[in-house]
Amino acid sequence: MQSLRFLRIPLFSPPNALFFVSQPPHLLPVKSISRISTKNFSSQMELSLSSSSSKLLFRQLFEKDSSTYTYLLADVSHPDKPALLIDPVDKTVDRDLNLVRELGLKLVYAMNTHVHADHVTGTGLIKSKFPGAKSVISRASGSKADVFIEPGDRIPFGDLFLEVRATPGHTSGCVTYVTGDEPDQPHPRMAFTGDALLIRGCGRTDFQGGSSKQLYESVHSQIFTLPKDTLIYPAHDYKGFNVSTVGEEIVYNPRLTKDLEEFKKIMENLNLPYPKMMDIAVPANLVCGLQDPTS
Amino acid sequence: MQSLRFLRIPLFSPPNALFFVSQPPHLLPVKSISRISTKNFSSQMELSLSSSSSKLLFRQLFEKDSSTYTYLLADVSHPDKPALLIDPVDKTVDRDLNLVRELGLKLVYAMNTHVHADHVTGTGLIKSKFPGAKSVISRASGSKADVFIEPGDRIPFGDLFLEVRATPGHTSGCVTYVTGDEPDQPHPRMAFTGDALLIRGCGRTDFQGGSSKQLYESVHSQIFTLPKDTLIYPAHDYKGFNVSTVGEEIVYNPRLTKDLEEFKKIMENLNLPYPKMMDIAVPANLVCGLQDPTS
Repeated sequence: MQSLRFLRIPLFSPPNALFFVSQPPHLLPVKSISRISTKNFSSQMELSLSSSSSKLLFRQLFEKDSSTYTYLLADVSHPDKPALLIDPVDKTVDRDLNLVRELGLKLVYAMNTHVHADHVTGTGLIKSKFPGAKSVISRASGSKADVFIEPGDRIPFGDLFLEVRATPGHTSGCVTYVTGDEPDQPHPRMAFTGDALLIRGCGRTDFQGGSSKQLYESVHSQIFTLPKDTLIYPAHDYKGFNVSTVGEEIVYNPRLTKDLEEFKKIMENLNLPYPKMMDIAVPANLVCGLQDPTS
Repeated sequence: MQSLRFLRIPLFSPPNALFFVSQPPHLLPVKSISRISTKNFSSQMELSLSSSSSKLLFRQLFEKDSSTYTYLLADVSHPDKPALLIDPVDKTVDRDLNLVRELGLKLVYAMNTHVHADHVTGTGLIKSKFPGAKSVISRASGSKADVFIEPGDRIPFGDLFLEVRATPGHTSGCVTYVTGDEPDQPHPRMAFTGDALLIRGCGRTDFQGGSSKQLYESVHSQIFTLPKDTLIYPAHDYKGFNVSTVGEEIVYNPRLTKDLEEFKKIMENLNLPYPKMMDIAVPANLVCGLQDPTS
């Protein structure tokens, strides 16, 4: 188990010296929290285009029972083709690993955005099948993992990297992974928001240390401050959408366009049922899905 | 009802004079049909990157009951933001049209790759709600529509266009829509293959004029001859994959990597049940989903 920060000693050694330079965590911009007008949205909204990079291989994978999106990213310009999986699900691990093999990738990280309550993570199972891969989660999650990340960390894979932003509120340990803000990184940027920000929605805040005030502040300060054309890739979608943008959610998210008090009221009155997988998933996910109880 | 070819008199007038020039249908390359070795796949396979264009807005939308993908494409660099939907489903029309409205697009075409047997098309419903939109299908489909397309036609939307390739075999009227092969078109190219080529699979060939020999020849001559990095976007996926490439399918498609005789045997022995929606969907889809019986 390792607790070193990615910025300082990356586990996967990229050829780019950038990642070896010790530097303070990136200071994330914080904007004042206020209700955002939905008027004049066309000037605010940036229409989404596909993210382009000659390096990034990207796949969005869907698990139908829990409507979970798993993401595969790899730097295919690097000789090793280093890859990572975000939010893998136990029951689709074989599908995902078969794809990794077929594409000739080297899986280095199996990461979670948070401790999920609706499905069992595949990270433990992945480690048992790909011993070289490391499980990754935020220190604030309280979960076991090989590598704990903190806000401002960079997670390198080849010459590409993800930046870690703390977006608690759905759970106290939620993070959003965002592709880098440098010329050689994919453009537009891509934000893997977990359950913090969903397309036209957000994660519930009534368990696992959830807080609607904290979620509101997280989304407004850490996600809505990204460039408007940043692509939003959530951990779930229940209506068949595959992507949104920061610009669209600033204008059209039916919850997060409200002011904080109204948002809190909405979240208090969702009256959602107790998640059917919660008593199985949460204890399992605190130890990489129980498939790897020793990690 | 119009039967004019897109190449000659496009219904949507693009600013690019290209589309007004009368020219013969593009001659599609035909390669000899043979078994493709799965050895040395890494040299054959082109890893997929996202398609990039400063003009194209692209969304992949999923309908869970029939596992259907609907695609939204628009030229957002054009003042009108002209858009088209490929394979819309009746029950998700409201979702799709709401997205079109939110993104400020002008829907010009609601298109089908073929007469579907597993869901009712949304094209008739779309026309009733967006009277400016035209329904589009191949003449060979035998279906009613506003516009009939034929192999080699170009379907323009703004400065972008789709090329029509005949890929019969699942049904006798199946087509594949492919983004243009010109410098100002998206790169890599994107192929919307309907049920002709699925990710690691293909459509069944045991009804609606289906022919396994014809499907095999269609895929090998019209899809596998595209550049290997061409992105494959099928009408369905049942395992949660969202995209593949020509290069991957040439190497890993478990059916179409076989020789023709073996492929025919595989298709003859699928023993699939009669599609539960077939008796409702096919008659409806021959008239744009019955929502528009007069078209």
